[in-house]
Amino acid sequence: MRASRFLFATLRETPNDAEVISHQLMLRAGMIRKLASGLYTWLPMGVRVLNKVEAIIREEMNASGALEVFMPVTQPASLWQESGRYVQYGPELLRIQDRHKNPFVLGPTHEEVITDLARNELKSYKQLPLNFYQIQTKFRDEIRPRFGVMRSREFVMKDAYSFHNDQASLQVTYDLMYQTYSNIFTRLGLDFRPVQADTGSIGGSGSHEFHVLANSGEDDVVFSTESDFAANVEKAEAILVGERAEPTQVLQVIDTPNTKTIEALCELLNIDAKQTLKAVLVQGTVLEEQADEHGNSPLVAVFLRGDHELNEIKAENHPLIASPLTFATEEQLKSVGLPAGSVGPQGLVEKGVTVLVDRAASVLSDFVTGANIADQHVQGANWERDATYSEVADLRNVVDGDPSPDGKGILQIRRGIEVGHIFQLGQKYSEALGCKVLGEDGKPQTVTMGCYGIGVTRVVAAAIEQNHDEKGIIWPKALAPFDIAIVPMNAHKSPRTVEAAESLYQELQALGFDVLLDDRNERPGVKFSDLELTGIPHRIVIGEKGLDAGTFEYKGRRDSESQDLSKEALLTLLKA
Amino acid sequence: MRASRFLFATLRETPNDAEVISHQLMLRAGMIRKLASGLYTWLPMGVRVLNKVEAIIREEMNASGALEVFMPVTQPASLWQESGRYVQYGPELLRIQDRHKNPFVLGPTHEEVITDLARNELKSYKQLPLNFYQIQTKFRDEIRPRFGVMRSREFVMKDAYSFHNDQASLQVTYDLMYQTYSNIFTRLGLDFRPVQADTGSIGGSGSHEFHVLANSGEDDVVFSTESDFAANVEKAEAILVGERAEPTQVLQVIDTPNTKTIEALCELLNIDAKQTLKAVLVQGTVLEEQADEHGNSPLVAVFLRGDHELNEIKAENHPLIASPLTFATEEQLKSVGLPAGSVGPQGLVEKGVTVLVDRAASVLSDFVTGANIADQHVQGANWERDATYSEVADLRNVVDGDPSPDGKGILQIRRGIEVGHIFQLGQKYSEALGCKVLGEDGKPQTVTMGCYGIGVTRVVAAAIEQNHDEKGIIWPKALAPFDIAIVPMNAHKSPRTVEAAESLYQELQALGFDVLLDDRNERPGVKFSDLELTGIPHRIVIGEKGLDAGTFEYKGRRDSESQDLSKEALLTLLKA
Repeated sequence: MRASRFLFATLRETPNDAEVISHQLMLRAGMIRKLASGLYTWLPMGVRVLNKVEAIIREEMNASGALEVFMPVTQPASLWQESGRYVQYGPELLRIQDRHKNPFVLGPTHEEVITDLARNELKSYKQLPLNFYQIQTKFRDEIRPRFGVMRSREFVMKDAYSFHNDQASLQVTYDLMYQTYSNIFTRLGLDFRPVQADTGSIGGSGSHEFHVLANSGEDDVVFSTESDFAANVEKAEAILVGERAEPTQVLQVIDTPNTKTIEALCELLNIDAKQTLKAVLVQGTVLEEQADEHGNSPLVAVFLRGDHELNEIKAENHPLIASPLTFATEEQLKSVGLPAGSVGPQGLVEKGVTVLVDRAASVLSDFVTGANIADQHVQGANWERDATYSEVADLRNVVDGDPSPDGKGILQIRRGIEVGHIFQLGQKYSEALGCKVLGEDGKPQTVTMGCYGIGVTRVVAAAIEQNHDEKGIIWPKALAPFDIAIVPMNAHKSPRTVEAAESLYQELQALGFDVLLDDRNERPGVKFSDLELTGIPHRIVIGEKGLDAGTFEYKGRRDSESQDLSKEALLTLLKA
Repeated sequence: MRASRFLFATLRETPNDAEVISHQLMLRAGMIRKLASGLYTWLPMGVRVLNKVEAIIREEMNASGALEVFMPVTQPASLWQESGRYVQYGPELLRIQDRHKNPFVLGPTHEEVITDLARNELKSYKQLPLNFYQIQTKFRDEIRPRFGVMRSREFVMKDAYSFHNDQASLQVTYDLMYQTYSNIFTRLGLDFRPVQADTGSIGGSGSHEFHVLANSGEDDVVFSTESDFAANVEKAEAILVGERAEPTQVLQVIDTPNTKTIEALCELLNIDAKQTLKAVLVQGTVLEEQADEHGNSPLVAVFLRGDHELNEIKAENHPLIASPLTFATEEQLKSVGLPAGSVGPQGLVEKGVTVLVDRAASVLSDFVTGANIADQHVQGANWERDATYSEVADLRNVVDGDPSPDGKGILQIRRGIEVGHIFQLGQKYSEALGCKVLGEDGKPQTVTMGCYGIGVTRVVAAAIEQNHDEKGIIWPKALAPFDIAIVPMNAHKSPRTVEAAESLYQELQALGFDVLLDDRNERPGVKFSDLELTGIPHRIVIGEKGLDAGTFEYKGRRDSESQDLSKEALLTLLKA
């Protein structure tokens, strides 16, 4: 490609409305432009990358035996009514009407459509397993689209749906998809982690998210230093370590005026947060016999070590805590005489409050906690002697340095961007839509399903979040819009430079490289900045001096200095 | 691909609601399934074909220097308001609202979005020409979607938009696109014709449609036997041939009871329709001084030779005829005393009716026409002597055998399916949206545009309309979902056959062929029917007998008989 015939839409300034680095760099490198909130046009520089991502995904999905299909963006509302998601999905599902006032939706995902297809087309257990995929435009009406194509309303997704006679067959395909996703992200040249994920309200028995590691990631992912354990922070179990020591101090009430946070408390008393116990008060599950005359739900006090955070998913999944998780009101606290900011476990169970203690908090002794009197705390508190509890449970987020739940190594936490998700759906959709095949026994049996998604457009943004420096994007080899850029110096007054550049351009293209010949009428500095900004891996400068010496000035995108190479050395390096 | 792991969704019966052969065969071959009116899911068999069409289009567009972009399906209504098409486009433009009640449309085409992009990104005449294309999902809310993917609501289109400093530059790109389209349809293996097309109300100076020839086509395309003249029938000029002979008969009124059609008239009088003159009565252009007190438009009588058809586009474009074309009401006929079915030109001009005569009708003499009295006609009528007219014009459709308007050869008419359209837009959109670049003189100048579309999904249907027989589809080589099918006979009791089939399967795949190994547990007859229905070009049957003799049973999709070939001969044939 000749740069003069290409749309080189680079920007010098960082656009105001771009918060994250990938969004900034995609705009600045001329990869995307905003059409409207959450809607982006991909410019030629962006499409070249997007097409490379799609090609790798398609190749690996085909290699896995998945069959490509292509479903409409527009879907009849009736299918969503059948699955129950027409209401459930909420306002992210854009509901529309055609000219005849028939209701449709813009598809945010395709479980309903593929299950409808399967119930019509699949007749016998002999046809299964089958795994269908597509690479296709989706629409989710995000309330606040942001971060460019990272969280846009229209986006490209690779979604796949598999159909099985039983759970064992699903597990085989699930494992194959796990491997296929690992192959895809490896070929894309990304540092990623597959992590166990919460299956949430969708149910089903297994789920992994694939995260691209990047400091700017929205999610915390957790993995072991010594084993292949890896999980979403929501899902990682915090195991019990150590035993509770015997009390050595007496319980003592201390004045702690204006001390509403653990941080303030530690500073005041000059202690470590690990020696404190904090309370989070939430609504409990409403059991009929427990509801008071106002129908209020019972109060649950969750106690955590001061340096730990409540894991809301774990809390929500606890049978005694209401789901969705709802914090207690001040009124509720008052009704049992508890002052916000100074709650301790002493006497709570006796007041009818359910006391749940996180594992790590349950082995504290001689701890500092609230005195249940405003502006007062207690020190030297000990379980059993001073306070009792209803139950010990895993209720906190794991932290760096926690032991891995598989007993091997310790946990590390990194930020990740979710780019893929594989999920054992079980029979949720096949039951709702009545998708059955004749079993070996001649009787109709409901099929078992899995689903597997990759955010194709998001992968591009995630790759940039992971690979950039202050000058711009640093593309992994497989994703670069061009492999090599050739810059002829002083082209307007050196025909020999132009000739040499042209000849190298032809030669490298013939070797199968995507080459950009930067023949723009711009200063070298502008070209160099643009090439660094757009992240092209290899830059070759051709000038009179080098031609005299028989060398080319080569600089890799990550290199700090250029080097003069003979043509042979240059070709060896590029082919490597 | 192993057929047992593929979705072979063939149907024995022709579905009731499929009117045209391509729709029937795409359903029967398991290529598509209907999701809702005008919405189709492409099954694996269909996607394989669709991907091949897309790949060829992408390669040729890239080779032409066009730059690939990717624009959203969802477009802000504001852009359509700017261009004026938000109202103009009519109900095929699906107008929707997002969750914040902001108005959007589902894009039926992308002139507005690309022009908006261009006005923001293009700064200088030096950047032009540029040609952007995408392969993308479109939505047109057809009032009566039909013929499967031939006229569906959601469809895939390759649309391209070029930007230029002047008409000369547009012409260069237009010619390049003409050539590119010719390359694409040639590579797809289709018998097609590029034809001149009417530019209609969009204006602009040039337009060609690309038609795939097929008897079932919706359009008539016209081309010369001796030159490269080719046009849409709406556009082809019918030139004047011959001169009017002197009258030889006297004008005579004859009784023609119940004779309302030319056919009936010819039968009654035992004459040729070429000797008759028929009238079509339409509304004229309303000029203020002509409108009567009721605001009625003037009456225009168009006279054509009895065997010719009115060309409505030509009529509409005539300055004296109202646009859109509107037929006269019976009341209007009565008001000037004309009986429907027996109108002749005698005395009409004198009554204030505008009389337009088609060129061919203007050279008739001694003709039969209406007597302007119910159930009566006249014979031996002659222009000038018996009737006068306002104007002679080209108002009819050309017919087979007419002389070519370029003076070379005669015209042939064939049915065609429009699969591509190239169009010189001029400044329609760039003016409406204010898309300007700085010219060589430093002043802003409005850019000139072209647009170029291919109906990607429609191409697949058109290919089938052109290439099929009573057994099913006959794919052109470039489009076949699989190049070769291998059928092992009696696989369940012949391990040697299975082995040979497997080995040939591997070998042919290694040679780069798309091979289907039909390992399904079905009778040979079922497999053979399926392979013929799905149109796979080459079939190789492997059985014990052939293995003994060292031959393979080969049958091409168009062959009536199979032949036994040595492996060498087989490979030579397949590679040819």
